Amino acid sequence: MPENRNSGSLRPDEVRKLCRRNQWQGTTSGAADGFAQANLVILPRDRANDFLLFCQRNPKPCPLLEVTDPGSPIPRLSGPNADLRTDLPGYRVWRNGELINEPDDIRSLWRDDFVSFLIGCSFTFETALRAAEVPVRHIEQGRNVPMYRTNIPCASAGDFRGDMVVSMRPLLPADAIRAIQITGRFPRVHGAPVHFGSPEAIGISEIARPDFGEAVTIHSGEIPVFWACGVTPQVALANAAPEIAITHRPGQMFVTDIRDETLAI
Amino acid sequence: MPENRNSGSLRPDEVRKLCRRNQWQGTTSGAADGFAQANLVILPRDRANDFLLFCQRNPKPCPLLEVTDPGSPIPRLSGPNADLRTDLPGYRVWRNGELINEPDDIRSLWRDDFVSFLIGCSFTFETALRAAEVPVRHIEQGRNVPMYRTNIPCASAGDFRGDMVVSMRPLLPADAIRAIQITGRFPRVHGAPVHFGSPEAIGISEIARPDFGEAVTIHSGEIPVFWACGVTPQVALANAAPEIAITHRPGQMFVTDIRDETLAI
Repeated sequence: MPENRNSGSLRPDEVRKLCRRNQWQGTTSGAADGFAQANLVILPRDRANDFLLFCQRNPKPCPLLEVTDPGSPIPRLSGPNADLRTDLPGYRVWRNGELINEPDDIRSLWRDDFVSFLIGCSFTFETALRAAEVPVRHIEQGRNVPMYRTNIPCASAGDFRGDMVVSMRPLLPADAIRAIQITGRFPRVHGAPVHFGSPEAIGISEIARPDFGEAVTIHSGEIPVFWACGVTPQVALANAAPEIAITHRPGQMFVTDIRDETLAI
Repeated sequence: MPENRNSGSLRPDEVRKLCRRNQWQGTTSGAADGFAQANLVILPRDRANDFLLFCQRNPKPCPLLEVTDPGSPIPRLSGPNADLRTDLPGYRVWRNGELINEPDDIRSLWRDDFVSFLIGCSFTFETALRAAEVPVRHIEQGRNVPMYRTNIPCASAGDFRGDMVVSMRPLLPADAIRAIQITGRFPRVHGAPVHFGSPEAIGISEIARPDFGEAVTIHSGEIPVFWACGVTPQVALANAAPEIAITHRPGQMFVTDIRDETLAI
């Protein structure tokens, strides 16, 4: 998966420095092995308060690792030497809910009222699953995880509203049980699954056609297991259509200084 | 402990109705057995945003069960038929950080910009401890739990800052181990302890003189075990000294419709 050779052995600050110099291409999956990565959402302060409330009300899809002080691009708890304006491989800029640009850094766009949200990412629990020898199909198949829109409503906050997006990993029942136990230890990176079995029961009509990411093979005897997904806040963002919002490019996350295992309860 | 006879068998809405009619006296400890109770903090919207950030940054002392929409006294997630202006036994009103009044209801004080925070309470994990036959000393002794100011700093947010307040329960080592496991299942009501053993190590000079609540007996062989405490936000409130804040009277909590066990991960 990593497009950057030997990137697993790099330290988080080394990965971030390569990003800052525009020497990092593509996904951060597999980079700085053992350290948590985060989804990024940046909003002006006047919309940030409602978005914070949205995350508080929907902790499974939107588990907050950190919220920065207005105007500060420094994530003082999860990467005190980092700069969120430059230290991700790439960004997406949204105006009134429309994607308008995908720059490599956002220094020229930065504003004194910007608040940054770092949201936990499933890479952390996938590391724990693989350590326990629970197979993770999309990694085996070298694909992006399949993600689906559901009919599970999120609790709204201001204009932020929408249904939950889930990621899916096919597992044999014994592995599903183990996966429920293992991911339940990580509530700050989506925690235990929200559903398993019938996709229709949560409004998914075609398991072979994910709404985001790529389909994976489901072997005989395997059951689809669904976790709340960090794409959910992007749906809520599209619905709220703020004047401006900035996110990471898919798969191109912020690499934190937080060790995965310190997030386990 | 309950000052209201047979109150354990009442439903949450029955307890709240008695409070609304001013027919409930004193603590809600022991009321509506099996349902979670919550600390209450009410702030004007312009201070609520920083306080929400304070809670997000300090989830062990300030685990949020719910944050209401501005102006709404209805906790739609944790008690959709409740009214936070009347349904607690008693309130405390603070102006610029000073306690000025302890009314039985706050209808006359209510404002369109008030935001209510419901913060998880240790009653829930004490129910789980007792169910597992882990002794809870202050309940055995019919006292309020002993609480102490520490030197453990909270992460600040705006003007909200201060050191953590902890509650203490003395336990034999085997019971302490069990208690760590059990309370770790309940991150939304303070979760696992933050310290055990030497009180001095966290800035507590006299274990026999708690800063809040009452001292309890520590038997030979027992170790003091410390949990993050819901009094912490009151210290942060005193430091921030907002123009107005309203909290519950100590021990006189909001009784939610949330069953304790649904809060376990």
